[in-house]
Amino acid sequence: MSLQGNLQPRGRPGPAARYAEIRQMTEALAAPLSAEDQCVQSMPDASPAKWHLAHTTWFFERMILSAAPDYEAFDPRYDALFNSYYLGLGTPFARARRGMLTRPSADEVLAYRHHVDAAMAALIEAGDVPLGTLALGLNHEQQHQELLLTDIKHAFACNPLLPAYRPAVLAAVESAPPLGWIDHDGGQVAVGDAGEGFAFDNERPEHVVSLRPFRIAARLVNCGEYLEFIADGGYARPELWLSDGWALARQEGWQAPLYWQPGAKEIFTLHGVRPIDPAEPVAHVSFYEAAAYAAWAGKRLPTEFEWEAVARTWPKEGHFLDLDVLHPRASQTPRMLGDAWAWTRSSYDPYPGFKTFEGPASEYNGKFMIGQIVLRGGSCATPADHIRTTYRNFFPPAARWQFSGIRLAEDI
Amino acid sequence: MSLQGNLQPRGRPGPAARYAEIRQMTEALAAPLSAEDQCVQSMPDASPAKWHLAHTTWFFERMILSAAPDYEAFDPRYDALFNSYYLGLGTPFARARRGMLTRPSADEVLAYRHHVDAAMAALIEAGDVPLGTLALGLNHEQQHQELLLTDIKHAFACNPLLPAYRPAVLAAVESAPPLGWIDHDGGQVAVGDAGEGFAFDNERPEHVVSLRPFRIAARLVNCGEYLEFIADGGYARPELWLSDGWALARQEGWQAPLYWQPGAKEIFTLHGVRPIDPAEPVAHVSFYEAAAYAAWAGKRLPTEFEWEAVARTWPKEGHFLDLDVLHPRASQTPRMLGDAWAWTRSSYDPYPGFKTFEGPASEYNGKFMIGQIVLRGGSCATPADHIRTTYRNFFPPAARWQFSGIRLAEDI
Amino acid sequence: MSLQGNLQPRGRPGPAARYAEIRQMTEALAAPLSAEDQCVQSMPDASPAKWHLAHTTWFFERMILSAAPDYEAFDPRYDALFNSYYLGLGTPFARARRGMLTRPSADEVLAYRHHVDAAMAALIEAGDVPLGTLALGLNHEQQHQELLLTDIKHAFACNPLLPAYRPAVLAAVESAPPLGWIDHDGGQVAVGDAGEGFAFDNERPEHVVSLRPFRIAARLVNCGEYLEFIADGGYARPELWLSDGWALARQEGWQAPLYWQPGAKEIFTLHGVRPIDPAEPVAHVSFYEAAAYAAWAGKRLPTEFEWEAVARTWPKEGHFLDLDVLHPRASQTPRMLGDAWAWTRSSYDPYPGFKTFEGPASEYNGKFMIGQIVLRGGSCATPADHIRTTYRNFFPPAARWQFSGIRLAEDI
Amino acid sequence: MSLQGNLQPRGRPGPAARYAEIRQMTEALAAPLSAEDQCVQSMPDASPAKWHLAHTTWFFERMILSAAPDYEAFDPRYDALFNSYYLGLGTPFARARRGMLTRPSADEVLAYRHHVDAAMAALIEAGDVPLGTLALGLNHEQQHQELLLTDIKHAFACNPLLPAYRPAVLAAVESAPPLGWIDHDGGQVAVGDAGEGFAFDNERPEHVVSLRPFRIAARLVNCGEYLEFIADGGYARPELWLSDGWALARQEGWQAPLYWQPGAKEIFTLHGVRPIDPAEPVAHVSFYEAAAYAAWAGKRLPTEFEWEAVARTWPKEGHFLDLDVLHPRASQTPRMLGDAWAWTRSSYDPYPGFKTFEGPASEYNGKFMIGQIVLRGGSCATPADHIRTTYRNFFPPAARWQFSGIRLAEDI
Repeated sequence: MSLQGNLQPRGRPGPAARYAEIRQMTEALAAPLSAEDQCVQSMPDASPAKWHLAHTTWFFERMILSAAPDYEAFDPRYDALFNSYYLGLGTPFARARRGMLTRPSADEVLAYRHHVDAAMAALIEAGDVPLGTLALGLNHEQQHQELLLTDIKHAFACNPLLPAYRPAVLAAVESAPPLGWIDHDGGQVAVGDAGEGFAFDNERPEHVVSLRPFRIAARLVNCGEYLEFIADGGYARPELWLSDGWALARQEGWQAPLYWQPGAKEIFTLHGVRPIDPAEPVAHVSFYEAAAYAAWAGKRLPTEFEWEAVARTWPKEGHFLDLDVLHPRASQTPRMLGDAWAWTRSSYDPYPGFKTFEGPASEYNGKFMIGQIVLRGGSCATPADHIRTTYRNFFPPAARWQFSGIRLAEDI
Repeated sequence: MSLQGNLQPRGRPGPAARYAEIRQMTEALAAPLSAEDQCVQSMPDASPAKWHLAHTTWFFERMILSAAPDYEAFDPRYDALFNSYYLGLGTPFARARRGMLTRPSADEVLAYRHHVDAAMAALIEAGDVPLGTLALGLNHEQQHQELLLTDIKHAFACNPLLPAYRPAVLAAVESAPPLGWIDHDGGQVAVGDAGEGFAFDNERPEHVVSLRPFRIAARLVNCGEYLEFIADGGYARPELWLSDGWALARQEGWQAPLYWQPGAKEIFTLHGVRPIDPAEPVAHVSFYEAAAYAAWAGKRLPTEFEWEAVARTWPKEGHFLDLDVLHPRASQTPRMLGDAWAWTRSSYDPYPGFKTFEGPASEYNGKFMIGQIVLRGGSCATPADHIRTTYRNFFPPAARWQFSGIRLAEDI
Repeated sequence: MSLQGNLQPRGRPGPAARYAEIRQMTEALAAPLSAEDQCVQSMPDASPAKWHLAHTTWFFERMILSAAPDYEAFDPRYDALFNSYYLGLGTPFARARRGMLTRPSADEVLAYRHHVDAAMAALIEAGDVPLGTLALGLNHEQQHQELLLTDIKHAFACNPLLPAYRPAVLAAVESAPPLGWIDHDGGQVAVGDAGEGFAFDNERPEHVVSLRPFRIAARLVNCGEYLEFIADGGYARPELWLSDGWALARQEGWQAPLYWQPGAKEIFTLHGVRPIDPAEPVAHVSFYEAAAYAAWAGKRLPTEFEWEAVARTWPKEGHFLDLDVLHPRASQTPRMLGDAWAWTRSSYDPYPGFKTFEGPASEYNGKFMIGQIVLRGGSCATPADHIRTTYRNFFPPAARWQFSGIRLAEDI
Repeated sequence: MSLQGNLQPRGRPGPAARYAEIRQMTEALAAPLSAEDQCVQSMPDASPAKWHLAHTTWFFERMILSAAPDYEAFDPRYDALFNSYYLGLGTPFARARRGMLTRPSADEVLAYRHHVDAAMAALIEAGDVPLGTLALGLNHEQQHQELLLTDIKHAFACNPLLPAYRPAVLAAVESAPPLGWIDHDGGQVAVGDAGEGFAFDNERPEHVVSLRPFRIAARLVNCGEYLEFIADGGYARPELWLSDGWALARQEGWQAPLYWQPGAKEIFTLHGVRPIDPAEPVAHVSFYEAAAYAAWAGKRLPTEFEWEAVARTWPKEGHFLDLDVLHPRASQTPRMLGDAWAWTRSSYDPYPGFKTFEGPASEYNGKFMIGQIVLRGGSCATPADHIRTTYRNFFPPAARWQFSGIRLAEDI
């Protein structure tokens, strides 16, 4: 599909301001980190913060500026270093070795950013920028904002000193709302993006699915509920688990969600170690744990279409990155969005009629449509203006380092 | 769901005769193999023929006979040895180590079979056998008949002597039919099993899906066509591949389907090494290769529902195990079934309203619904009376040792 | 060095009889095994019994018969299949895949043996056989006799049925002799082979080493003593262990020697499972365990030269394969030989002036002189006429599946 | 053995000055590195520069200061973080994860150093420091000075930008001296340390070995000679290699020493990429390559005792760290020391009568005496006053990231 985007949905500022705003946000997210912090890579799935800063810049350079007549690359050697996985654009530096790049330094990467920003500003000013690709680049950068946070969280958790990304004291929410349900009659439902605003290729085309009547939980499963699952032997009862999940949980010795400290009393957060708040949504669970929890609860996970059918009609409220609390929080009102991504019971398959973006961005999403599970709804680390009800996030079922949580469903 | 089966679909014999027929078929398939051949395990995914003979027997013993009042186990130690993956029934012997079981000997395993067969015959005669579970056991055994063949094929291919399972000379088909297409208007289509005959739990319940107009190829991709893909650099062009597939193909050095001999002139078959017949359906490709081929051809793979929508209405003809040619063969008429399983573009997710079988057989299918791709249509190694148009076979996308092939589709 | 051997040391029969005797011994050792047993390979370090039968035959074919004018190979395809590691003679079939060779069958391998035996007999009769190479081939075959036994023991131990190679009841020895010591004054000592009989290249040349005064235990450490080590936390105290050994013991969960059954009351032997006899020499320990035991006992392991200096002067008595008890047994008299190989504190380095055999047998020993430890003295599975006091056996320090035990030493 | 050391060998300054000098040297070596550079770990065998700075400090804190009555730890959490492998002193942080420690920062580690330095200075001033342990700590720190350089070299080589540790232009030496030889009559030779100065426990006790007549090369093999080995198929001829080395070279695709750039024209050095100088000693070869080269040259590697017998009597000249050229350089005079460590043909076994240091330092050397090869002579990255002719360095035979080279020997 062609890249079509609209940079001013819902009263947003013009492209130049929008570009500047999002780019500055990324740098603001990196600001609390030392040069050392920005360089570390804790596992192949995660990337250094510095790499995120550079790669998002590379994206604009390669997808837009390289076609501009007068643009000169900041450093031609960066082209391979900061290419993530675009094989049509060269041979990317090995993903698992990104943490080796002590050079360029954090300062040099900032200089690289500003070099590209100046060129982009000029191009936008001149009206020569393809707005669809610009929107893609900005949405791409927002995705990396969330990854920057989840990746540094993982790295800090590998350090016995357990540093806080941004120290803060969060009071526990006193009382959790009981679990409510939202009923849906099923039937023929349109899903996927049909709007004129920006959407990723994987959200298109809009199409009709047939749903049976169901209900979906009005909030995410919280830590108190998850503690009951643990206490009831949830991690020791194979009948609750998918076969691969059981094998993996055994092999890895899983006893609780990622970042729960031994004893299941405390949790490591971007704001430091704090007591587990029973009312807060559980996060950092794999799909396997989400599915096992649902089986234990006598429910199931919703399909991505069930989720979307309800979310379409629900208030677009939620706890996102903009709230500046980088951890899921209990809410007193029913919500479909924010706090933690909900694992769905849908594999990440292409929509009927799916077409990738044209040009080099064709590698953006399509080639990953295998072995992954769809997550919906955004998290406390997702920019609020980045999420949509048609948005399809995706991770392998074993992934735990994202803010991934559990929303239940059942047939009616 | 409860196990419901009908042992006499379409004029078949009664349960006792049906039981005897299928059980004898398994032994007949093992008969060309020496005791050594029956013991070998060439990879963790494959099992020794002797193990298949024993495990299918264990299934009847554990699912039916163990509840019979007077039954005495042949050897109580076999219970763990021949349990495949039923954690509710104990701790199975390690899958990857099945080839270590030189004892019990092939003769002892046959004695075990006959012990169980005698008890089953008595139970059937007495009318005390649960017919649904009996049907499950027989369908289970038929699945292992196919696996016995694909597993020994893999083992023999690991031996530089390349032994033939059953030596035979197969003449090449002189001319291949051109590729025809079957159009479908899409719309609301019922899929899944609603019949009264036997079906696996994963085929149920019947439900409606919305399809867009499409067409599907009237035959599988053949070796001649696949050779064009290879000649056109199919294995060297990352833009055709899913990301995981590309990485795996590089890592494993894939240059052609499994069992193609170096040079791509000859192919190892259960009947020995023979020249590649351009007209015969290509088989032993992974899902990754199937998807890359489809991308190269400018088409796509069908979803499992597109496949089923067409197959429901198409003649139930095909080349199955009963034909006794254990290799895909060119056909002059359009067919949806047989020769080679068609990889679909559908992940193996549960159907809406899916429920596992009740009792110990609940572990049969449901716990594997992750990380796998649906294949449809049966192969030259599938018993003809085992296949259905609602039948969902499933393997990980990297699997190549099954008779797995390619059927194209496209939007219209 | 040139291959020099003497086929009639100490009143043995002539070459033809000697050849026949040793070759028949190998077949006799395989006789209790079914075709399935002979085919199985339980780990890459071990080989199937059938492979031992074939490889020892290949050795005569390749080292002797292939130079004979009229010899015709039994099957030219066997040349790569049964080449172990002689890269100068082609590309051997992958070691870790030897268990895949269900073909040739056990019967065919026997036919192969007899084909080669007939040709060898004719050659010996004609006086055309190079006696040194013949001696090498026979000593080589004796090495594989021991390996055949240790390898099938490992394979049977992987089977929960724990089959006995040759069922037998062994009474425990009532009382163990107390641990005696043999003193040695040290000084300039000649070690290594200088004789005219057969020796491997790694035993040559004879040379002088300087020893300090020491004493060496007059028997191997027994199971009762080893049980004290276990009871005293031997497997849980890192200060007793070499660093690599500690890491490996943790990783593998070692709590006792290989083949000790959980609870440390019973032991799996080639004669079946039986109670641990405290008086019997402990076997199936790694070098790491031997060194940790010695540290715990306040002693050390002897160097290979200390061992040899004493063994040269000691009676050549011991419990070997010919005794037909395939398990270490307590002895009432001091012994340097038999029962179990003693791990020494000597790395397997070349002797000063070491030269490999000439010709294709140059790959026999020299290329393995890295990462291995010398063991001395032979075991209950070593043919009595195969051992010498200069004999250097060698295995990696982690190896446990040989009859490897512990003999202590200390400075005086 | 007890730790005995002499801090004023050969006219050196007193303990306080000596301590300050060596400690400052370490910081000077880290000075060219950014905080990012100091944090990176390129493989489990290598450590971050910051970790070296901290661990050497920990060593003084733990071995000396922790026994001082008034000492307060800088941060008690550092005790586990910067413990390398002393299991008697707690549970060290995982070696392979040292690169995760972005905190403490480089600045905090310097503050840690200065805290310990102040306490050490006071203790030395007060005359309360055990001089033997002090000498051990300083020799330990010098070992880490060399490792700091070899580890950062490895890290930089992983970065496609190939940063120079300290940019410099090195002119090639115009003419290489021909290879000369030093003859030795063999006989009874004393080896090992018997002096009153500091030596590691692994160098003791002095003892006598018997040597046969031999000669040893008067310089290391140079790159020009090694290029001939490559050109003659050195990396493609299995008959030259030890079996493990051949397998590893195949697996890793070795075609030249580490750090040689593709095409074998240029080499990465701590001073940047530069043309290969044929006259300079070849370095960064594994023991396997050294042994293969020697086999190709028709020579062999010397034993550690042959090397020592000659080095004892040879001028103590060589190119060491103090020369400030961090790369091997051709010399016009025969030398036994410096430039690159010489792989010997001696496994790292304990000397007869070997005793470890007493106390926590007992884990210093002894527990690594398995699976390693002795190297002798020091390198361009070894402090000149750190090396001795009795000095035994040791690494696994596969190690290539040290300045390890080749010195030939042969029998006469």
